[in-house]
Amino acid sequence: MKAAWIEGGRVELRRAPLPRRRRGEALIRVEIAGICNTDLELQRGYYGFSGIPGHEFVGEVVEGSPRWQGRRVVGEINLGCGRCSWCGRSMRRHCPRRKVLGIRGHGGALAEYITLPEDNLHAAPENLDPRELVFCEPLAAACEILDQVRIPRGARTAVLGDGKLGLLVAQVLGQAGADVTVFGRHEERRPFLLRRGIRFRPAGDRPRAKFPFVVEATGSAAGLGAALDIVEPRGTVVLKSTVHGKAELDSAKVVVDELVLIGSRCGRFEPALRLLERQEVDVMPLIHAELPLDEVAEAFRRAAQPGALKVLVRCSERPARAANSARSRVRRS
Amino acid sequence: MKAAWIEGGRVELRRAPLPRRRRGEALIRVEIAGICNTDLELQRGYYGFSGIPGHEFVGEVVEGSPRWQGRRVVGEINLGCGRCSWCGRSMRRHCPRRKVLGIRGHGGALAEYITLPEDNLHAAPENLDPRELVFCEPLAAACEILDQVRIPRGARTAVLGDGKLGLLVAQVLGQAGADVTVFGRHEERRPFLLRRGIRFRPAGDRPRAKFPFVVEATGSAAGLGAALDIVEPRGTVVLKSTVHGKAELDSAKVVVDELVLIGSRCGRFEPALRLLERQEVDVMPLIHAELPLDEVAEAFRRAAQPGALKVLVRCSERPARAANSARSRVRRS
Repeated sequence: MKAAWIEGGRVELRRAPLPRRRRGEALIRVEIAGICNTDLELQRGYYGFSGIPGHEFVGEVVEGSPRWQGRRVVGEINLGCGRCSWCGRSMRRHCPRRKVLGIRGHGGALAEYITLPEDNLHAAPENLDPRELVFCEPLAAACEILDQVRIPRGARTAVLGDGKLGLLVAQVLGQAGADVTVFGRHEERRPFLLRRGIRFRPAGDRPRAKFPFVVEATGSAAGLGAALDIVEPRGTVVLKSTVHGKAELDSAKVVVDELVLIGSRCGRFEPALRLLERQEVDVMPLIHAELPLDEVAEAFRRAAQPGALKVLVRCSERPARAANSARSRVRRS
Repeated sequence: MKAAWIEGGRVELRRAPLPRRRRGEALIRVEIAGICNTDLELQRGYYGFSGIPGHEFVGEVVEGSPRWQGRRVVGEINLGCGRCSWCGRSMRRHCPRRKVLGIRGHGGALAEYITLPEDNLHAAPENLDPRELVFCEPLAAACEILDQVRIPRGARTAVLGDGKLGLLVAQVLGQAGADVTVFGRHEERRPFLLRRGIRFRPAGDRPRAKFPFVVEATGSAAGLGAALDIVEPRGTVVLKSTVHGKAELDSAKVVVDELVLIGSRCGRFEPALRLLERQEVDVMPLIHAELPLDEVAEAFRRAAQPGALKVLVRCSERPARAANSARSRVRRS
């Protein structure tokens, strides 16, 4: 099959063997995959990664149990060991031996096919465009905040960063009733936010100690300090940016102001699918470009441009709905 | 009156004017005051402080309303403005215009007399030694953790640091039902801890990702990194050390492991007084030395020695119980 391949700081299209299903796994033909900042970090070599990246996808099960065969699916990206206490608590995303789709030990979705445990799959609602569905994974990461922090209705909430994740987080929190202000660098995103009842302020225009809730989604190491400036005493800062290297923390301020800092990563897919299905968040305006898998190197280049929003990669065309015929088209190479 | 005075990195005994009571304040003759790490930091000049330090005390009201006159008291150290929303929520310790006894804008307790708002006072239980009572303030800071974090009974909890604050925190959490291990540098403190059902392990002997709850009370900048090593995914780290300057934070670990970091400072006195009154914590073994106010410079020197526990300063002798005669002894200079 064709697949994106990251090695030595480069992304290229390669031919790779079709992934082999293990017990409990489905083989999925990827329709569309998204490029996330983590993928750009993998390219930069931060985690010594080489292999097939990609963890945001929508696809169709071409080999699996009867329950899933032929269905359009999205999928959670953490593959737990299934035996530890984390997996026992439905927390496979913290399993210490987990593999992670396109990130750790399991080939990713910027390819024609992936495998994934059927336990990780969620059926895609029929009313949704696949380009919307591919946002399910980052949207779930935004929804994770609401699983971690109780934000009362009307609570003043700052979202630092108006990138892909910041715009999802702002919508999720706004939809949950928070009074959201996005601090960003892209004035042109103000109208989109305003239509959704969300204020926009330039990133540098930050009041001090004014917000009980702050979400740091700048993707930069400086975001943490900015969040500490803006949060009020006893406030909560949710950290969403996985920044390589050490950040500087004014720990005395954290202690004196009794701040709460909460790291937040992947989330459950259910609330994200519900928001998409009910059209309660708007993801289509977040699409920056859409390219075929053959042009995946160009897709990475565009995703890395300053201010770029989501770059989607069409990994295959969806055939006429006939699961069995889909299966017959799988080629083992 | 006689008072300790910090200026330019030095502590010395000076004569200072008797502090003037403002509306709602009591004049208190200090019996005993304690030296805290914050006082040592004030001496090091970290906050540009000059003046009378000291915020841990027990004393007797010599001028005040009839309710307080002649009573032995301890007192909360934050003086709120009384008008802001924080003060309105009984949170004067986060009032942005607060003064803080012996730390910010209000002369401290390493002196013969202090003033303090009567709202800040708590009557000292009669069954307690004043040397126990002087621990009320740091003990309240330890109890603050239980106001911020729900630690289930039997939860594995690591306390990093076997200094003054670490030993109080370990006792408070152990008494609340946590399964506490102290990681420390002073093997000789093991028996004291064991008698209270608390394990001791050498500071360097830290397992990785093993504790759902960690309290950082090392007083050193390296404590934060050690806490992140030892806490398990989704765990909670309570930060107690106010370390000057920036600490290094592996923010990606905080995000990936979805850790919760909570800064913790001063606490309510009620639970601390209750613990002391019921003898549920043992503070007398934490006394390292006791000196008269005349030797306060030496007291600071001893408090700064590596491994020193609490150094107490006798600021005046308690007269025979006769409040009115106490008042007559107040000299205005």
